[in-house]
Amino acid sequence: MAGQIDARLAELGIDLPDAPAPAANYLPWVITGNLVMISGQIPMAGGELAITGTVGDGTVTEDDAIAEARKCAINLLAQLKTATGGDLDKVKRVVKLGGFVASQPSFTMQPKVINAASDLMVEVFGDAGRHSRFAVGASALPLGCVVEIEGIFEIEA
Amino acid sequence: MAGQIDARLAELGIDLPDAPAPAANYLPWVITGNLVMISGQIPMAGGELAITGTVGDGTVTEDDAIAEARKCAINLLAQLKTATGGDLDKVKRVVKLGGFVASQPSFTMQPKVINAASDLMVEVFGDAGRHSRFAVGASALPLGCVVEIEGIFEIEA
Amino acid sequence: MAGQIDARLAELGIDLPDAPAPAANYLPWVITGNLVMISGQIPMAGGELAITGTVGDGTVTEDDAIAEARKCAINLLAQLKTATGGDLDKVKRVVKLGGFVASQPSFTMQPKVINAASDLMVEVFGDAGRHSRFAVGASALPLGCVVEIEGIFEIEA
Repeated sequence: MAGQIDARLAELGIDLPDAPAPAANYLPWVITGNLVMISGQIPMAGGELAITGTVGDGTVTEDDAIAEARKCAINLLAQLKTATGGDLDKVKRVVKLGGFVASQPSFTMQPKVINAASDLMVEVFGDAGRHSRFAVGASALPLGCVVEIEGIFEIEA
Repeated sequence: MAGQIDARLAELGIDLPDAPAPAANYLPWVITGNLVMISGQIPMAGGELAITGTVGDGTVTEDDAIAEARKCAINLLAQLKTATGGDLDKVKRVVKLGGFVASQPSFTMQPKVINAASDLMVEVFGDAGRHSRFAVGASALPLGCVVEIEGIFEIEA
Repeated sequence: MAGQIDARLAELGIDLPDAPAPAANYLPWVITGNLVMISGQIPMAGGELAITGTVGDGTVTEDDAIAEARKCAINLLAQLKTATGGDLDKVKRVVKLGGFVASQPSFTMQPKVINAASDLMVEVFGDAGRHSRFAVGASALPLGCVVEIEGIFEIEA
């Protein structure tokens, strides 16, 4: 009984993780009107961050950050799946991604990093995956993660 | 003639300050549809910032930042009270908080800091206070303040 | 056949550039309901950034940043013009600006920088140009630009 988007995810070899619940007084997502507003997702995978630090600090590379951004996007989709009651076909479009990359002042390729998330949205949703966004440098991110991405999605009313 | 939320604030011992007006060409809040979008609030209290700096700089501690985040949340509520014409019972839910913590690269507990604001929302509004959010590090914040938080709230149409 | 806002732009001596298309899988703007959500704009003018760096690094001044913020605002208007099918008179109000200023920890006048964008909105749209906003420091911004500003605008349904 998988939907079209589930089929597309399978085709892409993406197995959505269980959507992690926040450990505090906030929610992974809120629906207001026909918008799902998803909390900033960090690149947790299997309960762990593969790398920590800031790009440009001598240990974290741009390629590391790109890989982490993709994990954030996968976590956004996992949350979105819960928000749609398990039916990602209810998603009408990706409205916005807000991307933060933990950056030393010398690292200025935030757009290239966040592209990994933007690309995934388009791979999964096609044209409906195209979105507005920002991509900026943060001095530090939660638990030392390298990327954090929030998202707004439009769903069927 | 105090409403339920006013009574709850009194119970919590919270005396909302006068909502400060911005000193420039912007507004403390805008209502669009049934959403109130509140400008980033800094931890001004009594016209002053108790502390300035960035967490991890040797002078500002995590506990300092937590105290400042709570002040930001109180200022959000003060603005929200004005936006609802004085009647906080018109608030249907807290939709989103966007939290910035002035951080050195070594400080990565932004979520714990912003929890102080999230907790206050739930203390005041109960389950309707739960919200989506992001919590990130900023290299610097206005006037040297330690925390800045913006908010989106849903009100009765 | 210029509209009122076009006339006002001419009066202000502002010639909107062609709205640049993003170079990746995202869009300059998305319309959801009666809101236009515009991607973070950087101060590109004539295909170039006049200055790069972070305020407080010894090369970029506050005045530099103010000039760059105004260019971001002009680029927001250029995107908005496309989003409204060329008719800026369809804009009902400016809802929100989100302003990031590339800042060393010592630079804390982000509001003064973003005021250049806020002021432009009010010059162009009058009272409808007043908006909610945040202004924060980013450790670094795309391509080394000094300011990035995203915007939300309400248009006629």
